[in-house]
Amino acid sequence: MSLPTRVRLVEVSPRDGLQNEATPVSTETKLALIDWLADAGLNYIEAGSFVSPKWVPQMADSAEVFQRLQRRPGITYAALTPNLQGWEAALKAGVEEVAVFGAASESFTRKNINCSVAESLARFEPLLAAAQQAGVRVRGYVSTVVGCPYEGDIAPAKVAEVAKALYQMGCYEISLGDTIGVGTPLKVKRMLEAVAKEVPIDKLAAHFHDTYGQALANLYAVLEEGIAVIDASVAGLGGCPYAKGASGNVATEEVVYLLHGLGIETGVDLQRLAEAGRFISEQLGRPSRSKVGTALLAK
Amino acid sequence: MSLPTRVRLVEVSPRDGLQNEATPVSTETKLALIDWLADAGLNYIEAGSFVSPKWVPQMADSAEVFQRLQRRPGITYAALTPNLQGWEAALKAGVEEVAVFGAASESFTRKNINCSVAESLARFEPLLAAAQQAGVRVRGYVSTVVGCPYEGDIAPAKVAEVAKALYQMGCYEISLGDTIGVGTPLKVKRMLEAVAKEVPIDKLAAHFHDTYGQALANLYAVLEEGIAVIDASVAGLGGCPYAKGASGNVATEEVVYLLHGLGIETGVDLQRLAEAGRFISEQLGRPSRSKVGTALLAK
Repeated sequence: MSLPTRVRLVEVSPRDGLQNEATPVSTETKLALIDWLADAGLNYIEAGSFVSPKWVPQMADSAEVFQRLQRRPGITYAALTPNLQGWEAALKAGVEEVAVFGAASESFTRKNINCSVAESLARFEPLLAAAQQAGVRVRGYVSTVVGCPYEGDIAPAKVAEVAKALYQMGCYEISLGDTIGVGTPLKVKRMLEAVAKEVPIDKLAAHFHDTYGQALANLYAVLEEGIAVIDASVAGLGGCPYAKGASGNVATEEVVYLLHGLGIETGVDLQRLAEAGRFISEQLGRPSRSKVGTALLAK
Repeated sequence: MSLPTRVRLVEVSPRDGLQNEATPVSTETKLALIDWLADAGLNYIEAGSFVSPKWVPQMADSAEVFQRLQRRPGITYAALTPNLQGWEAALKAGVEEVAVFGAASESFTRKNINCSVAESLARFEPLLAAAQQAGVRVRGYVSTVVGCPYEGDIAPAKVAEVAKALYQMGCYEISLGDTIGVGTPLKVKRMLEAVAKEVPIDKLAAHFHDTYGQALANLYAVLEEGIAVIDASVAGLGGCPYAKGASGNVATEEVVYLLHGLGIETGVDLQRLAEAGRFISEQLGRPSRSKVGTALLAK
């Protein structure tokens, strides 16, 4: 087991981190956050989501965000696009990379979008075909890869099946999401081993939530297995919608601290990242969920 | 690398967790907390400290705590005793097991008790002799095993030297404390490997702080190395005195969630433990630092 020498971070705070805020965050604040993140050295930022504003009013300004953001060389600004309509809006707004969002749980899919997992995947096919024609890369998310709020444990084989389908459909990378943060290292490794039989490990990313404080232990476990792409959210933005007040996304500061401590390069300046976390926490009027941010800035 | 089948938890909240509270916690509340912890299945509880009330007023009632606590069969109630005077007071109060507290950092020792590490260890000798004569077991703590707030990185060889000295002096177990929580898995493993050359691994415990959110990743790493005794504090009680507002002790709830997820027995009922964490957090008038506690009780 050897660790990677470099890890690519996918910063999801402007999208995944802010999409559940009770009061939608202003476009100005989102643009400022994106700048702070770029200043800290993050080179992949998920900046918005092209979904119906009826469902996610917090992301209603994504077209404006993409039109106004100061693009910097070497940084990818991506958006979530759940369907063909979203894809077309994203393309019009000049998004250079998009992502689609599937799940490994039948109950979760049924509850969220009222169809089976197979049906949900089939809906992505025209989107992937259109993106390919436009020369736009598509990232695939698989959620509920360890557990589901409705049906409990998820079989690793089911996760592998969904990841494989997205990969074969043309997604260049598959991000494996422990949506409710119930994973522990051995469970996460077992899941990953099943998926890695179907999709090369260098096409996989870890998207772990910290609801039960296990995200870093799980990340350490999958780094040992060869994972070198990690999704995270500054200040731990993004709660768990299935347990009010509970934590969601793992804080990027904690991930960077872990990686640098392991001698793994990220290209990120941790002090600046902590300041980015402080900026958005102040804007939201609440303390940061990042322990690293709190400890570094208390010094 | 195989994980242990069972881990022994050392619950330090009534002592380490409460000794830095700005307002000392009442004896009644301490006794109630100890009962909650026992109800949750914890069988080793560090319940107080026999130090000068001038230095640690929060522990001034330790004799009363030990005289009044409802002893239950199978549970060890221990106390910290920094010197012979503390040992005599502990013995008089009916403490059945004590602990001494050393450090691997010369600067830390000099700053805290104005002597060298060697001198500090020599002071424990009469205490250990007296305890042996009284048939009382002594646990040894080594603090700053990864980093020190004054001198930065600590050499693993220095930690090994201090741990060996305490072990040879008669401590039955040595608890290795990452006092400022700066460890990451490889550093912690390197430290442990050095110590395990001098002290058998089954005589070692991990006492990790979560200041930078790394405690669970570090615990997973040392479980793989054979550690089977872990110190923790319910609700993450106990801040980091070197960074105001920052986290200190790892939350027992998080440790138990990790261990149970790995299929390791602890004898602890996690739901009851979360309720113990809620009890003391309510008493202190602030939210629990345990993510597991928050998530479980939000359901």
